[in-house]
Amino acid sequence: MPQGTFAALDYLFHPRSVAVVGASTQEGPGSFVSAIKEMGFTGALYPVNPKAAEIQGLTCYRRLTEIPGDVDYVISSVPLRFVEQLVEDCGAKHVKVLHFFTAGFSETGDAEATALERRVLARAGALGIRVIGPNCMGLYVPAAGLSFMPFLPTEPGPVAFLSQSGANAGEFCRTGEVRGLRYSKVVSYGNGADLRESELLEYIAEDPETTVVGCYIEGINDGPRFMRALRKAASAKPVVILKGGRTEAGTRAANSHTGSLAGSLAIFDAAVRQAGAMRVDRMEELVDSVVAFRFLGSLRGPRAAIVGGGGGYSVLASDEVASHGLRMPALPEDIQQKLVAFTPTAGTSVRNPVDTSVGWGPDGLKPMLETIRIVAEAPNIDFILYHTSWSWGPNRGGQTAHPGGPTIVEAARESATKLGELAAEIGKPIVCVARIPTTETGMGGTLTFQHEAAAGGLAVFPSVDAASLAVQRLLAWQEHSEFAPAK
Amino acid sequence: MPQGTFAALDYLFHPRSVAVVGASTQEGPGSFVSAIKEMGFTGALYPVNPKAAEIQGLTCYRRLTEIPGDVDYVISSVPLRFVEQLVEDCGAKHVKVLHFFTAGFSETGDAEATALERRVLARAGALGIRVIGPNCMGLYVPAAGLSFMPFLPTEPGPVAFLSQSGANAGEFCRTGEVRGLRYSKVVSYGNGADLRESELLEYIAEDPETTVVGCYIEGINDGPRFMRALRKAASAKPVVILKGGRTEAGTRAANSHTGSLAGSLAIFDAAVRQAGAMRVDRMEELVDSVVAFRFLGSLRGPRAAIVGGGGGYSVLASDEVASHGLRMPALPEDIQQKLVAFTPTAGTSVRNPVDTSVGWGPDGLKPMLETIRIVAEAPNIDFILYHTSWSWGPNRGGQTAHPGGPTIVEAARESATKLGELAAEIGKPIVCVARIPTTETGMGGTLTFQHEAAAGGLAVFPSVDAASLAVQRLLAWQEHSEFAPAK
Repeated sequence: MPQGTFAALDYLFHPRSVAVVGASTQEGPGSFVSAIKEMGFTGALYPVNPKAAEIQGLTCYRRLTEIPGDVDYVISSVPLRFVEQLVEDCGAKHVKVLHFFTAGFSETGDAEATALERRVLARAGALGIRVIGPNCMGLYVPAAGLSFMPFLPTEPGPVAFLSQSGANAGEFCRTGEVRGLRYSKVVSYGNGADLRESELLEYIAEDPETTVVGCYIEGINDGPRFMRALRKAASAKPVVILKGGRTEAGTRAANSHTGSLAGSLAIFDAAVRQAGAMRVDRMEELVDSVVAFRFLGSLRGPRAAIVGGGGGYSVLASDEVASHGLRMPALPEDIQQKLVAFTPTAGTSVRNPVDTSVGWGPDGLKPMLETIRIVAEAPNIDFILYHTSWSWGPNRGGQTAHPGGPTIVEAARESATKLGELAAEIGKPIVCVARIPTTETGMGGTLTFQHEAAAGGLAVFPSVDAASLAVQRLLAWQEHSEFAPAK
Repeated sequence: MPQGTFAALDYLFHPRSVAVVGASTQEGPGSFVSAIKEMGFTGALYPVNPKAAEIQGLTCYRRLTEIPGDVDYVISSVPLRFVEQLVEDCGAKHVKVLHFFTAGFSETGDAEATALERRVLARAGALGIRVIGPNCMGLYVPAAGLSFMPFLPTEPGPVAFLSQSGANAGEFCRTGEVRGLRYSKVVSYGNGADLRESELLEYIAEDPETTVVGCYIEGINDGPRFMRALRKAASAKPVVILKGGRTEAGTRAANSHTGSLAGSLAIFDAAVRQAGAMRVDRMEELVDSVVAFRFLGSLRGPRAAIVGGGGGYSVLASDEVASHGLRMPALPEDIQQKLVAFTPTAGTSVRNPVDTSVGWGPDGLKPMLETIRIVAEAPNIDFILYHTSWSWGPNRGGQTAHPGGPTIVEAARESATKLGELAAEIGKPIVCVARIPTTETGMGGTLTFQHEAAAGGLAVFPSVDAASLAVQRLLAWQEHSEFAPAK
C-alpha cells in the first residue's frame, strides 16, 4: 500500500465497524465501548469478552472470530499473552486497523517484549493490517463517532492532534475544549511501532477537515522522513509541537514511557524552524498557540492597546506584554481626549494601558465597549488586549451587582457576545484574557465567557502572560513561515 | 511621634471606632461599610453621608463632626473638593488615621492636584493624623475586623501584604485564600503620601502576628531608607516582592497609576538580594512563593521524586522540574524493586518519575499513598512532587467511579487529608500540584483539595512549572539569606 498519501490513510479514520476485544465488564463511563457509544458511532460496535454475554446493552462475543459481520477496526485491551492470537484472528476477519491499548511491549526495555512487538508488527503487516500503538489510546474522531475517553465534545472542528501520550492527548482536548477548540482527528499512537508522526503528518497535511495541527512528540524514529513530513504539513497549515523530553530528565522519562531515544533539542528546534512549524515548551502553551492560530489567524503587528479594570492590573499587564517583546505605544492625543470622557478622573490611565470600568456599574458594559471602540480607532494599534476576571466584584457568590442586575454567568455571556460583535465591527482583533477563577461561581462565569467568546471568534487566554507569549510566537511564526499570509 | 518602631504604628491596625465619610447609599456588598460589617468589626462603625439617615442598618451622620463618640479611623470616599474640610473635621474629632480612598491627587500628574495632596498631608501631619493613601483601598486586618472588599476570609493568619495597588491586594488575598493563605495585616497604600513601603516594612518586621511578608511595589521614594527597612524585615522573616514596572512600558503605567518614577530594575534586584529578600515577576509567582514559605518553610535540597498518574504527564513534569534547575536522581535499585509491586507492568516508570495510580481503581488511594511512602525511603530524594487533577476521570460530572464510590469532592478531600498525614509520617515534604480545572465539578474538587491540603500543612501549586519555580526560588533564597535555617 502506498504510504504517506491522503487516500492511503483516510480509511483508518472512518471504520464502519469496531470491535473492542477485552472489553471492560465494569459499568461506568471509563471504557472504550461507552466512550464510542457516547460519541454517537453509527456503525456496528462489538464488545468481545469471553466472560460476559452483554456489555453496556450490546451483545458481547467470546472471540473476535465469532462476530457475524465484518470488522474494520479492532481495539485490543487483552493481556500481552493473547496478542499474537488476536493478530491471527484479525487476519481471519480481514480487519484493516488494529489499535493496541495493550501495553508492556518495547517501552519496557525488555528484550522479550521488544521481540514480541516486532513479531506482532511483522505479522500484522503481512496480513495487511495497520497498527496503532501499542501502549496508546488510539483515535478520537468525533465526525466518525470514535472516542478514547469519556466526556469529550461530540461536535467536530478543525483542530488535529497527534500525540505519543494518551493522557496528554486527553489533557489537550479537555483544556482546549473550554477555550473553544473542536477536533477533526486526534491520534494517540504511543510506541508508534507502525503508524507514527511522519506518516500522520503527511496525511493531516492533506486533510480538508483540518486547519490547525498540534503534536506531542517524545521521539522521532527517522529524522529525514520527519523533516519532509513536517515541511509538507507546515507548508499547508500551522503546526505546533510540544516536545516531551526537552531536558535530560525528561528524555529519560520519555524513554521509560514510549521507548523514545534522546535527540538534541537544538537540532529538533532547527528542523522545526526550517520547516516553518512552531515548538512550545508546555502543554498550556500548546493550547494557547493552537487557540491563537484557530481564532487570531494572523496579526498585523506587535502594537497592543491594553484595556481592563484596575490600575495595578494595568501595570502588571504592561509588564507582561513588554516582557514578551510586544509594543505598547501611547495612544494618539485625540484618542486620549475622547477617552477622558469615560474615566472618572481626568488625566489618568488613558495613555495605554487604559483603565476602564469592568461592567458592574449602572451603565453596565457600555463604558468598556465604548472605550475599546475609541481605542481601536488609533492607527498605531494592531490589536486590543482586554483583561478581565469573573471571580470578584459584587457578583461573586451568585449575587447580582444591583437589584435586577445580571448574575455572573449572565454578565459573562453578555460581555463575551458584545465583545465578539465589537471585534467584527472595529476590524481589529480583541485578544481576551479571563484570569483563572478562584470560586465555583467564578468558574461558571469564566467557562461561559470562554464559550461565548469562542463562538464569536475570539481567542481567550488565562493570563496576560499567556496571551502575550502566544501573540509573540504567532508574530515570530508569521515572520519565518512561507505559509503565513502576506502582510 | 517616633517613626519606624512597632509601637509607633500598631495603633493604626486596631481602631476602636471607624467612620466612612461619603459612605455609599447603594445596597449590596461592594462598600466599605458592608465589608467592615462582614468582617465582624466589634467597635463603633459610623457611616457619614448628608443624603441618608441610615446605611446598611446603621445610623448615618451628615458630617463627621456630628458623630457623638470618638472616631479613631476615618475612611474618605468624598470627592476631591471636600477633602480639605474633611481633614479639619478629623482634627476636630481627634482622629488618628485618615485613609483616602479618594483619588485624583498627585497620581494625575496635575500640578494643582499635587499641591492639594501636599497641603492635605501637611495639615494632617500638623494635626497628628497619619494618612493612608490617597488613591487606595486601605486596610484588611481580619483580627481587628477591618476590610476593604467583600468576601475576604474572616479568619486571620500569618501572612502580611503591603501593596501600592488595591486591585492587586485583592487579587493576592483571593488567589492566596484558596491556597490556604490567611492574613495578619494587608495594607493598600496607593500613592503612599505618608505611610508607605519602608515604614510599613519596619513595622511588619516586628509584628508577632506576621511570619511571611508579600509586597507589591511600584516605586520607592527613598532608596537608602528602603534598603534599611527591607534588610530589617528580611532578616526577621521571608519577604517576597512583586515589582510593578519591571519594564519600560510597565514603569510608564505605574507612573500613571500611583505617580511612581522609573528606577533601574537591576539596582532594585541588587538591593533585594543584598537584603536577603526575594523578587518575583508575576502575581501568580508572588502567591506561589508566599505559599512555599508558608507551607514548605525550608527544603533540604533540590532532589525531587515525581509521583503521579500518566506517562505523558510524567515526561512533561520531568521537563518542568529539570528546566528550573532541580534534580531528579534515579531511585535506588531496592526502592525500584519495591515499587514494581505497585505498577501494572514490570520495568516501566519506577525509576523517577514514578507513574502511579490516580486513585480511581477499586483499591482507592492505597497504591498512590504506598508508592509515596516507598519513594520517601530513598536517601537521595529531598522531596516528593505529587501531581494530580480533578477535572477528569470517571468522576467528572459528579459521578462516582464505581457504585458506592466517592464523589469527586469526597475523593479530593480524602486524598488531601491522607497526603497531609503521610507527609507528617514520612518526614519529607510532599509538594502537591493540582492542575487548573476545566469544569465546575473539577473546580469544586480542586478547591476542596487545596483547602484540605493546606489544613494538613501542604503546599499546593497549579502546575509543575509553578511548583518547580517556587521550589527553585526557595532553595536559592536559602543559599543567600542569613535568615534561612542552617542546613
